[in-house]
Amino acid sequence: MPRAVVLLSGGLDSATTLAIAKDSGYECYCLSFNYGQRHDIELDKAKQIASAMGAASHKVVTLDIGQFGGSALTDDNIEVPKDVDTEEIPVTYVPARNTILLSIALGYAETIDAKAIFIGANAVDYSGYPDCRPEFIQAFAEVARLGTKEGVEGRPITIEAPLIDLTKAEIIKKGTALGVPYELTWSCYSGGEKACGHCDSCRLRLKGFAEAGLKDPVPYEV
Amino acid sequence: MPRAVVLLSGGLDSATTLAIAKDSGYECYCLSFNYGQRHDIELDKAKQIASAMGAASHKVVTLDIGQFGGSALTDDNIEVPKDVDTEEIPVTYVPARNTILLSIALGYAETIDAKAIFIGANAVDYSGYPDCRPEFIQAFAEVARLGTKEGVEGRPITIEAPLIDLTKAEIIKKGTALGVPYELTWSCYSGGEKACGHCDSCRLRLKGFAEAGLKDPVPYEV
Repeated sequence: MPRAVVLLSGGLDSATTLAIAKDSGYECYCLSFNYGQRHDIELDKAKQIASAMGAASHKVVTLDIGQFGGSALTDDNIEVPKDVDTEEIPVTYVPARNTILLSIALGYAETIDAKAIFIGANAVDYSGYPDCRPEFIQAFAEVARLGTKEGVEGRPITIEAPLIDLTKAEIIKKGTALGVPYELTWSCYSGGEKACGHCDSCRLRLKGFAEAGLKDPVPYEV
Repeated sequence: MPRAVVLLSGGLDSATTLAIAKDSGYECYCLSFNYGQRHDIELDKAKQIASAMGAASHKVVTLDIGQFGGSALTDDNIEVPKDVDTEEIPVTYVPARNTILLSIALGYAETIDAKAIFIGANAVDYSGYPDCRPEFIQAFAEVARLGTKEGVEGRPITIEAPLIDLTKAEIIKKGTALGVPYELTWSCYSGGEKACGHCDSCRLRLKGFAEAGLKDPVPYEV
């Protein structure tokens, strides 16, 4: 079986991406990051998801980019917004996050001779994040082709973003068909025992389940 | 003064790059990495160089990519070769290293509103490293343009690799003219009180000083 590195955050999108990678015939090596995001619950969930979905391995890379600040997700001085709609780049954007995650995944992929990297980037729901757009993914694929020995040897590591054009409802339907244990996934920005239901991420998720005609198995605060 | 992030390893090339960035009118924010390279001496030297050359700041990011293995520089099970000439990608190649360093520099640059990132990549002496070639740097510049809010807003962070086409002798001459304190730089792969003089990196350095008609101020084992 060819190997793939799968970026796994503990959220709904990356769990679905793992299911798609597996269904495409890859042996999956999951990679999560501790980059100062506010809540360890995401990493606990990522570990449970990797195990439940039969990943070959799960590694966590600690990355102290929180020392730079600049994002509500890594900087305690910036508040995570609730119930706000905006067309601008949200404060939850972590500078160059996907570039950083993909680059480390690329180093890992070279080391274990993986053929592909899977990322759950999505351009529909995260339209404000520049590093979730197809043109960004394509540009990074060029970096992978030109910046690695595999690329130089004519067998570049590919960058797969199978969710990039899907709505949240389409993602949930696809994942449900593939048996993703959504009860293990965590999307809320705010942490706590139950999901808040009001942050951007919770609202997107709830809307997605509603549109898919399915019930979100995760508990919410009333 | 516009700001630049300068990747500073503690070696000769990155110190020269810092001097060029400063001479180009940038306020320099230096970034070093602790990625499991064998010797802390490089990071000590980087700190001294940043201070001696009047950098605005120096940060060290710890990155546990050593857990992946795959390089003689981060994996104790792979020996650093001495006095070997090869056309192949050397075992001292760290998978996707420059992609990883540039991506984190990109996140930092976004956070501090820097206009440029300087990297001491060199295609002449490191011809075996795919991520030291001009086409790689250009591909990464596209990632920076497409994957950041600055790029989306039409003012992309530029990637500057001022040494890319220079020989080691040319780098040393340029740096000497700009007053680089080469006595503070460290190039040896093998560590120790004095440089070994036999690893790839020492040999390149000694050859460069000889061709430049200058004396390397760093002490070597006899």
